[in-house]
Amino acid sequence: MACPEKTPLQSASPEGQDLKRGSSSMLTDWWISGWSPAHCPCCASDCVEPMVLLQLGEGMESNTKSWMMRLLSRPQTQGGAGLLVHPGEDDFNDVLLLSAPRCTLLQATEELGLCRPDHDGNMATFSYHNKQLFRHSDNMQEFLTLAERQFIVKCELESLRALEVQRIPGVPAHLGHLKFRENVFQTMRKAGLIMDMIPLHNQKQLVALRKEWYSHTRLWGQPLESIQSYFGGSVAFYFSFLDFYTRALMPMALLGGVLALMPPETRKGTAMEDTEEPEPESDSEWVSPGGLVIMAMMSMLWSTVLLELWKRRSSTLAYHWGTNRLTERFAEPRPSFYGELGVNPVTGRLEPLFPAWQRQLRLALVSTPLVGMFLGLVVLGMTGFYWAQSRAQDWHESSQSLISMALLYMPSVAHIVYTNILGTAYGKVALRLTEWENHREESAFQNHHTTKVLVFTFFNCFAVLFHIAFVKQDLPLLQKRLASLLIVTQLINQVSEVVVPFIIDHFLNPPERKEEDDDPEADAILDQSNLPPFPGLFSEYIELLVQFGYLSLFSCVYPLTALLLLLNNLTELRTDAYKICKLFRKPFAPPTAGIGVWQAAFEILGFLSVMSNCWLLIMSPRLQEFSQEVGLNSTQILVLAVLVEHILILVKLIVAFLIPDEPDWVRIQREKAEFHSMRALGQQKL
Amino acid sequence: MACPEKTPLQSASPEGQDLKRGSSSMLTDWWISGWSPAHCPCCASDCVEPMVLLQLGEGMESNTKSWMMRLLSRPQTQGGAGLLVHPGEDDFNDVLLLSAPRCTLLQATEELGLCRPDHDGNMATFSYHNKQLFRHSDNMQEFLTLAERQFIVKCELESLRALEVQRIPGVPAHLGHLKFRENVFQTMRKAGLIMDMIPLHNQKQLVALRKEWYSHTRLWGQPLESIQSYFGGSVAFYFSFLDFYTRALMPMALLGGVLALMPPETRKGTAMEDTEEPEPESDSEWVSPGGLVIMAMMSMLWSTVLLELWKRRSSTLAYHWGTNRLTERFAEPRPSFYGELGVNPVTGRLEPLFPAWQRQLRLALVSTPLVGMFLGLVVLGMTGFYWAQSRAQDWHESSQSLISMALLYMPSVAHIVYTNILGTAYGKVALRLTEWENHREESAFQNHHTTKVLVFTFFNCFAVLFHIAFVKQDLPLLQKRLASLLIVTQLINQVSEVVVPFIIDHFLNPPERKEEDDDPEADAILDQSNLPPFPGLFSEYIELLVQFGYLSLFSCVYPLTALLLLLNNLTELRTDAYKICKLFRKPFAPPTAGIGVWQAAFEILGFLSVMSNCWLLIMSPRLQEFSQEVGLNSTQILVLAVLVEHILILVKLIVAFLIPDEPDWVRIQREKAEFHSMRALGQQKL
Repeated sequence: MACPEKTPLQSASPEGQDLKRGSSSMLTDWWISGWSPAHCPCCASDCVEPMVLLQLGEGMESNTKSWMMRLLSRPQTQGGAGLLVHPGEDDFNDVLLLSAPRCTLLQATEELGLCRPDHDGNMATFSYHNKQLFRHSDNMQEFLTLAERQFIVKCELESLRALEVQRIPGVPAHLGHLKFRENVFQTMRKAGLIMDMIPLHNQKQLVALRKEWYSHTRLWGQPLESIQSYFGGSVAFYFSFLDFYTRALMPMALLGGVLALMPPETRKGTAMEDTEEPEPESDSEWVSPGGLVIMAMMSMLWSTVLLELWKRRSSTLAYHWGTNRLTERFAEPRPSFYGELGVNPVTGRLEPLFPAWQRQLRLALVSTPLVGMFLGLVVLGMTGFYWAQSRAQDWHESSQSLISMALLYMPSVAHIVYTNILGTAYGKVALRLTEWENHREESAFQNHHTTKVLVFTFFNCFAVLFHIAFVKQDLPLLQKRLASLLIVTQLINQVSEVVVPFIIDHFLNPPERKEEDDDPEADAILDQSNLPPFPGLFSEYIELLVQFGYLSLFSCVYPLTALLLLLNNLTELRTDAYKICKLFRKPFAPPTAGIGVWQAAFEILGFLSVMSNCWLLIMSPRLQEFSQEVGLNSTQILVLAVLVEHILILVKLIVAFLIPDEPDWVRIQREKAEFHSMRALGQQKL
Repeated sequence: MACPEKTPLQSASPEGQDLKRGSSSMLTDWWISGWSPAHCPCCASDCVEPMVLLQLGEGMESNTKSWMMRLLSRPQTQGGAGLLVHPGEDDFNDVLLLSAPRCTLLQATEELGLCRPDHDGNMATFSYHNKQLFRHSDNMQEFLTLAERQFIVKCELESLRALEVQRIPGVPAHLGHLKFRENVFQTMRKAGLIMDMIPLHNQKQLVALRKEWYSHTRLWGQPLESIQSYFGGSVAFYFSFLDFYTRALMPMALLGGVLALMPPETRKGTAMEDTEEPEPESDSEWVSPGGLVIMAMMSMLWSTVLLELWKRRSSTLAYHWGTNRLTERFAEPRPSFYGELGVNPVTGRLEPLFPAWQRQLRLALVSTPLVGMFLGLVVLGMTGFYWAQSRAQDWHESSQSLISMALLYMPSVAHIVYTNILGTAYGKVALRLTEWENHREESAFQNHHTTKVLVFTFFNCFAVLFHIAFVKQDLPLLQKRLASLLIVTQLINQVSEVVVPFIIDHFLNPPERKEEDDDPEADAILDQSNLPPFPGLFSEYIELLVQFGYLSLFSCVYPLTALLLLLNNLTELRTDAYKICKLFRKPFAPPTAGIGVWQAAFEILGFLSVMSNCWLLIMSPRLQEFSQEVGLNSTQILVLAVLVEHILILVKLIVAFLIPDEPDWVRIQREKAEFHSMRALGQQKL
């Protein structure tokens, strides 16, 4: 492996020289010496890039640490992890630095099923056997991105299994006993030997990325390639989607703006007001019936087209990033997967097996009812809240005392407390349930966990709105509530995501700020463990989904939604970038081929929106007036609405079917790969 | 290739000796001599099975015939079809007999992507390169079924392309000119050199199959393996589906029977009658509201479960028959596919190319509007019919003359004539349109053609029923109509499919009957071209689909539907078997992995049925009475119905999602194959 100053990635910045000029000699050590030796001649290198920091349990005995170092650096064929290990400052330091030699990286690339460009620039599934056919396969810093290299180190570590029964030295027998094929990483974690695993920042690359990303004043566009390269696939996909979605908001914002600015003579309402600049809290009434219908139709078609085009974009990105042929299901199961040790019928490898029917039984008989129960509790809470509120109101009206006035706030407070407790409890239950369902693949685990939390969050966010819209049928209240939600959410977001971090970063945390300028990188590496861990992309996605819900489910009630969301997302893009670069540890991000379960969530919301909009439309007083003028009774209106709803769903399905999920050239590349794979199977020597 | 008497398939019956004892020495010739020689030593055999009869144009010159024979028997590497050719009785006879040598069959097996058992009995995609690893790869009669061998001969013939510019001797220049890479078969057809191509029956196997199939008195079960082996995949899938569907009808028939037989005191109606044995023409009124609801719910869930279970069955059958990994898209395009000659970007082969967007444009801008226009014409015809009928009725009531009474029949007659003309015209237009859309794969062509005809037929069959149900809202009439349709359709089917063929077969066609007993097989072979060509499975499937439509769309109107269909299908199974064995030429049947587009058609019908049943339910007078008793107004009933409809669709989707599309063991086998394929790609030598 080339030294940093020689790598093309950093050739523009003489980082290596910086490093050597640095105040701490240890820094140079960490790149140059102190590493366990590589086991094959092709991996030998005179300098090694530290990729992952392993935070060890405090006060670990030195023989335990050296046992661990031996295990991690031993070749995989001898039951090790095949990594390069550095003991940190000395044997008594409670960190290990990890890196991976070339052969480990290449083999893992094949196992992950990553595609890489060959010498002609065509993407092909990487094959270790034919590595010389792939571009840069001798220079790991070009061949794999930093995020991929770090992810591979994590995979190697996590998938390490004991080749024989053994005891971890220096650890009590009940904790340090390794059974045959037991997951070593899990055991070490349980025994408190490993506290944390942190992918290390590359300060030079980070500074360059930040400059490119959010220090510039450009309004649109994200440096997706650099994000993918530095932070990894799942993060890059999140930012790609956010970018794509924000751009797609523009036509809707424009339409909503035009409708809201329509000359007042075309609008009549009970509370006629100047609504050129409608304040959300005002009683601004409905736009014209025609506008309403246009808005609803447009938003329904828009969501379909948006999601279909995103699929195409997503498949293009996955092709470029070489993640379109991932083979997670053929890889080792996730570390905490348990089951009877047996031969995997597909791969023929010895690994824990867990029957699929048992998982499905757990899903159907335990997880689903439990999730349903929590959803029931949400509804119960809401019903209780409305009941208590009306009781308090009645009491206050009859007694008019100060106590009764104070009691007026009780239901709200109680409901907020209840909701919070419920949310926290559910979060724990969802994680435990998903663990217990015992999914083999990490992505399946993530999908099931996400789905659980998502359903609950969505329910929590929208139950009240649905109640107002369809049970109370109070559209002005819905409009007010929606507007204030949009404004309040935005304000909270801005404050919590920009202002607070900015204050912390600039005023409360001066040492960190200094480190940015000229502190030695060595300390920077160790300091990274002091940052809070990255909370994951879940909350970011759910924010988008809830937004999308406001927009598509109730679009015809408040036409300015899209405009507000557009403004919000333009700042969101920057604050998210700032957050991930500055405020948290670098996360491990697996290579992914898309946004996974979120795609489905957005699509389901799209279909719900057709129903919601149709019902909102027929409930709108303006349209009801209009239809009474035309001479339709309520049953006929209803039949009409049902008809329109069914037709719109059909149109959505047809549009979704007509727009191919991948561009033609991606399809051809995929089929080509499949053809080659088929041919290879036919021609192999057996 | 082994002689017939040596092949295990026929070992029980000493057919070869029969043949040699036969009156015509030519028969023996056709198995033993007169064949063009095989080109590789491994294919040389002392006797050849005639598989396909090529009916040549009358009065073909003998030099044309010998040119054709040379071309067909030349190896594929030299631009021939690699077949074995027999000139029939002599050079002036207007037939050619075709067979295929072992290497051609094996290579075609690989190209089709068929799976075959290896020596351990596991199915694996056949590879010519590793042929020695597959069971029976030295005995073609065991390795491939008769239908597969015949299909391969057809493929080889149809995919033959001219390797150089040439003229067909003995044919006028404007007809017999072959351009570079032009499809030879198409040119020969156009020039009138080839009139027909008929897969030959194997009388011995046919007699055995018939005995096993429908001469027995067993009520259930089809000899699917034998059908697949003798008639091929698509035919076997049809019979499997019919069998599966008929069995699935039982619970519905039982439920319907119970509901129809329910004690009269639980039923009240305007025309109370003894309905223990309800005659369909009678005015027998509705079953109880509860029964109605149960019937509707059951039929909706039933259709989902049926289709999901069929998917599993289908994937199991495809695995057993080795058709689960077909690679049609990588094979040669269908013969009549045209386009600019170019390099296929996927396979790298030189072949006609046609841009996909152009096809989509044709589909969207021409085919869809035209189909829509025809559907409009159907509606127009129906509207005209109703209009004319009411006018005639009025006139008859006012004049009461004989002429007016005769005129009463005019609208019906005119409508029938109109519908027939429309149907014929549409059939032609649909075929031409699909040809013009220029699909690359035969299956895509079939699917698009089927879809077109299906939509029209479906519309034609159900427009009137929908009109009665939802526009006229005349449920008793719907019930009557449905009952008479079911009875009449059944009677017509029985007559046209059993009685007429039986008469023809037993009384009008004595020579054919004699041939069954002891006529020489030689004549039998030539006689096969006198039978009418098999009309395809389309009409069989559409019959099932229309049945399924009666059952699921209007199930709650006439509960005995399922019982009648069950009886109908039990005879249908036998008559279809009889038809394909005795009354028509043997068809070419491609290996397929399922019932293709029909699966989707049935599923769509399943969703339509939810809507239809919900609306029929709320229109049912009994339920309306009931809900008025409970105190719901019509708007509330409607809202309730919409809610129920949406929930049922959701339930259908969830059930469909929860039942895996393939059994676990099939999934494991599939993943295993994919894993091996991936590994092979990684390990190939490049």
